[in-house]
Amino acid sequence: MDQNSLGELRTFYASFGRMPVPDGTRVTETVLGGVPALDVAVPQADDSSGVLLYLHGGGYVIGTARTGVPLTAVLAARAGLRALSLDYRLAPEHPFPAAVDDAVAAYRALLDDTDPARVVLAGDSAGGGLALATVLAARDAGLPLPAAVATFSGWFDLTLSGPSLTGKESVDPIFDASDIREYAETYLPDGADARASLASPVLADLRGLPPLLLQVGTHEVLLDDSTTLAARAAAADVEVTLESYPRSAHVFQHQHGTDPAAARAVDAAAAFLARRTGQAV
Amino acid sequence: MDQNSLGELRTFYASFGRMPVPDGTRVTETVLGGVPALDVAVPQADDSSGVLLYLHGGGYVIGTARTGVPLTAVLAARAGLRALSLDYRLAPEHPFPAAVDDAVAAYRALLDDTDPARVVLAGDSAGGGLALATVLAARDAGLPLPAAVATFSGWFDLTLSGPSLTGKESVDPIFDASDIREYAETYLPDGADARASLASPVLADLRGLPPLLLQVGTHEVLLDDSTTLAARAAAADVEVTLESYPRSAHVFQHQHGTDPAAARAVDAAAAFLARRTGQAV
Repeated sequence: MDQNSLGELRTFYASFGRMPVPDGTRVTETVLGGVPALDVAVPQADDSSGVLLYLHGGGYVIGTARTGVPLTAVLAARAGLRALSLDYRLAPEHPFPAAVDDAVAAYRALLDDTDPARVVLAGDSAGGGLALATVLAARDAGLPLPAAVATFSGWFDLTLSGPSLTGKESVDPIFDASDIREYAETYLPDGADARASLASPVLADLRGLPPLLLQVGTHEVLLDDSTTLAARAAAADVEVTLESYPRSAHVFQHQHGTDPAAARAVDAAAAFLARRTGQAV
Repeated sequence: MDQNSLGELRTFYASFGRMPVPDGTRVTETVLGGVPALDVAVPQADDSSGVLLYLHGGGYVIGTARTGVPLTAVLAARAGLRALSLDYRLAPEHPFPAAVDDAVAAYRALLDDTDPARVVLAGDSAGGGLALATVLAARDAGLPLPAAVATFSGWFDLTLSGPSLTGKESVDPIFDASDIREYAETYLPDGADARASLASPVLADLRGLPPLLLQVGTHEVLLDDSTTLAARAAAADVEVTLESYPRSAHVFQHQHGTDPAAARAVDAAAAFLARRTGQAV
């Protein structure tokens, strides 16, 4: 990815950070496990609420904690959760596994003062893959696991093996296969194996993972990332809910203010996160 | 399947018909499109309620409308629906596609006096496969489609191609692969192609199907029937919800009175059916 297109993409994607947030949302800069983050406080949560750690999308290359705020805030408000949007390091400046290292450091820090049964992770696109990688790394490090993980159009397969990668190109309004390949090549340094569990959770041993909610649009080249992860997680005795949204595009949840399907998806995700953290919503 | 074991299986399976039903359930014999059925009336439904057509399980070989009553009644009560449990014809006396013919005839009869947007189908095991086959046949006949279909451990692949068929043998407390093969051979007459859409909906063109809820336990040789159908339906732009229940067995929903996971599954299915028929539950 050349420097010009990278800069343009980052600038364009920053506009997602200016989408509306629920009334009363307060965003404060903080640091979590040494990683910059935004604390996203909503009136529906208080000190006794569970905590959502949100991982923004952008192919591990673009996006910031700020671009994650609108989805973080709407989930926090509807689920009654405290929430943080994490500024994990991006490639190419910081290739794989820097993002995973940051997310695990942040998760470890959360555990210092929060019962893991009250912690949930969520993320969109690469942030969804990062959420899975974080839980896999936590499991392998012997850490207690969060109560649940929810993903929106998660990117789980950096080997790019899903038939939808080309099969859905003609209906995906955002990506074609070559875009996805470019993000993968930018994130993975020379010599990194795309099949590594923390790069491609779809290929990992998934045993012991907490309940997963995987939402995906059917007009996405990344559709198979979610359907295949669902099948493999179920085979590994994981509690999985897969939801497909017909003719919806990549991370359509951003449009929850105008698209009824997106509003339903956000409501379903918030209800899932609330239930898993014992919130009465 | 020899006559003795068939008789024993049918007698044993009849015990499912004596499982408890919600208070106030009234079961009445009726006929729907020329097919015997049981009308399952619950206090939570009235003449203005939507209608559930339930298709019992039993490998297309055993079971009756009566064995379907306990799950029909609990879904009807929790979703506030009128309901019918269908006595479709069984193999080997009446091989494929007799069951599909009966279910389609019953569905057509329902359409005579019910808005299809208020009709939902559900079924367990072979009844789940039959529900999908019914909707596929209805679509291909140009009939209006029901509002939704929910399945419990649906049997969707009579070609027996799923890796779980042997991969889950050691943890499935009910079936091994040879049991499933015997049911398939009993249902499909000599010369019938197991790949036919109405025998193996997992292989069908699934475009245009209504929203699907597919629940499955992870300790099932039939696990892949649901995960593969979910993936293929999503690829065909169908709205799918797949739910896996860790370490649950085939049609664990029968144990909703004692097993919390089964109770959650039945609640989720009832909420799905209620929402799709416009019930306020």
